[in-house]
Amino acid sequence: MMRAHVTKKTLSEGLGLLERVVPSRSSNPLLTSLKVEASEAGLTLSGTNLEIDLSCFVPAEVQDPQSFVVPAHLFAQIVRNLGGELVELEIVGSELAVRAGGSDFKLQTGDLEAYPPLSFPAHADVSLDAAELARAFGSVRYAASNEAFQAVFRGIKLEHRGGGSARVVASDGYRVAIRDFPADGDGRNLIVPARSADELIRVLKDGEARFTYGEGMLSVTTDRVRMNLKLLDGDFPDYERVIPKDIKLQVTLPGTALKEAVNRVAVLADKNANNRVEFLVSEGKLRLAAEGDYGRAQDTLDVTQGGSEPAMSLAFNARHVLDALGPIEGEAELLFSGSTSPAIFRASGGGGYMAVMVTLRV
Amino acid sequence: MMRAHVTKKTLSEGLGLLERVVPSRSSNPLLTSLKVEASEAGLTLSGTNLEIDLSCFVPAEVQDPQSFVVPAHLFAQIVRNLGGELVELEIVGSELAVRAGGSDFKLQTGDLEAYPPLSFPAHADVSLDAAELARAFGSVRYAASNEAFQAVFRGIKLEHRGGGSARVVASDGYRVAIRDFPADGDGRNLIVPARSADELIRVLKDGEARFTYGEGMLSVTTDRVRMNLKLLDGDFPDYERVIPKDIKLQVTLPGTALKEAVNRVAVLADKNANNRVEFLVSEGKLRLAAEGDYGRAQDTLDVTQGGSEPAMSLAFNARHVLDALGPIEGEAELLFSGSTSPAIFRASGGGGYMAVMVTLRV
Repeated sequence: MMRAHVTKKTLSEGLGLLERVVPSRSSNPLLTSLKVEASEAGLTLSGTNLEIDLSCFVPAEVQDPQSFVVPAHLFAQIVRNLGGELVELEIVGSELAVRAGGSDFKLQTGDLEAYPPLSFPAHADVSLDAAELARAFGSVRYAASNEAFQAVFRGIKLEHRGGGSARVVASDGYRVAIRDFPADGDGRNLIVPARSADELIRVLKDGEARFTYGEGMLSVTTDRVRMNLKLLDGDFPDYERVIPKDIKLQVTLPGTALKEAVNRVAVLADKNANNRVEFLVSEGKLRLAAEGDYGRAQDTLDVTQGGSEPAMSLAFNARHVLDALGPIEGEAELLFSGSTSPAIFRASGGGGYMAVMVTLRV
Repeated sequence: MMRAHVTKKTLSEGLGLLERVVPSRSSNPLLTSLKVEASEAGLTLSGTNLEIDLSCFVPAEVQDPQSFVVPAHLFAQIVRNLGGELVELEIVGSELAVRAGGSDFKLQTGDLEAYPPLSFPAHADVSLDAAELARAFGSVRYAASNEAFQAVFRGIKLEHRGGGSARVVASDGYRVAIRDFPADGDGRNLIVPARSADELIRVLKDGEARFTYGEGMLSVTTDRVRMNLKLLDGDFPDYERVIPKDIKLQVTLPGTALKEAVNRVAVLADKNANNRVEFLVSEGKLRLAAEGDYGRAQDTLDVTQGGSEPAMSLAFNARHVLDALGPIEGEAELLFSGSTSPAIFRASGGGGYMAVMVTLRV
């Protein structure tokens, strides 16, 4: 019978990743389990929610390697609570024994034959920097909708643009978030469901993210994990059309100061009127104003102002402004092309991130 | 018109206390407001949820003192988000202006005449140590029920026991939590609703808590706050009857080790069987065991064992055990009088805290 020794820390980390993907309840109880495949070098933990398959290798000392299936969340919870550094796993009949210090747990194992087959590709089509990719997905994630009727608005588009550059784009129809990042090779354009991107962001740390393209599917492999994602079908909207080209007024100010001020005035903004906050620029000042049932708020900030127009007044949804500013560190640059045209918010000095937002009616 | 200057920190702290008591929604919108009474020395903020009246003094520099009523949660949120250290308040017509740095808020004030009159007594009947009282209430709070049909099970009894000692007791009918603490004077016995005790715990810091007894009411005054509480009517159960006197077996072990082990085995305990965990004591070992649909758990701990019986087996609700151990720091002492009699959990070496728990059927 199999016996394995593994550190609590590495096993916990692996189980932690699987726990996020494997559902805690399902009409098919096997789907709440994870499959453990053992080799002499360690344990491969795999699970699926039918949208995402995830597999994670955990180094361990294993005698008489054996595969088995156990309830994912219970197993993870037990390991997390154990005392001591080293965990012993042993297959005893139809049970998995989990031991550490004075603790001795016996978990029922499931039907290994009935567990859905998960397969991960062995070759890679293209390779991206894992940290850059995670940062890019993380920067635009907010703009994808969780509920939109049109599937593409629930996804993040990944474009290979040639010349060593790739781009991720997300939109819910009211705003577009874009991040360009360095990428070698010539990959396919595809749309990743935003919820799957959340898991990808969590799993990608450093090193390489190797992509393998399948039929309506993407497999991502790192040194630690392998993941299959179902892709979204459909045409992503032509977002480049809404990026304003003719900038008439532009202001620069510390991003944090703007976030704090928008947060402040938003308290009084009318929730039933899109959390409307007005931006008034003139004479090196940005004045924010909001008004609701309980009163009025005003905040004035010093800005560096440029462009051909001396003053402009626009209105935005305060929540959207705060989202757009999220990925901006340091100075923020706001580019305005008119009171009723979309505006650009980006980090001053580049960095590849850009938010495009529609204005509310003045 | 009134104008006041106050530091953001003190005003925020005062509003933070009021925010917990004043409801955020009410069929009577005035109840979601707070009343501010100004003197030249500062502002007195008051609010009520009809169970608890709370009043808090905030030092401020005030010109032309004036009283007013404003929405409590909005005011608190605005002040919390302000930049800068100093806040300026000014009454401008029917509005309260709130200013700091570049921010200028105007909040509608409410109808001062219509606000319910709140009165706090000026004299004190008895005085207790605020920190001791808060610690005592905090230690036994868990044993009071939030839903019990019988009102006294939703309360915490405060007893003056003479000889410089007072006691708080809470029970939900299955367990009793008791904490004795030093107290001078000869106060009344009374039952404080557990939810009001929660607020009292939050408000009491150090110094004296001065009690004033009213008709079905208790007023508590500290240097910072004044609070009126409605008391619970009724007879508190005779809990002394259930405290076992004839201890047959007793074990001592580090409280943290026991908490961790109970937490571990509880993962597999059957939720539909009171989270049953068995305690088996013999030969200087405490063995914990739990069993459910997915497997079995066992944990063995070294203990110092005493008493006339060499071994005993009992069963408890794991959640109740964890609650009972909560207030115990350092070594825990478990006193058993039999498999079917209530058990005592207390801090080894005293400290005035004791939990009495019924056992589950073996």
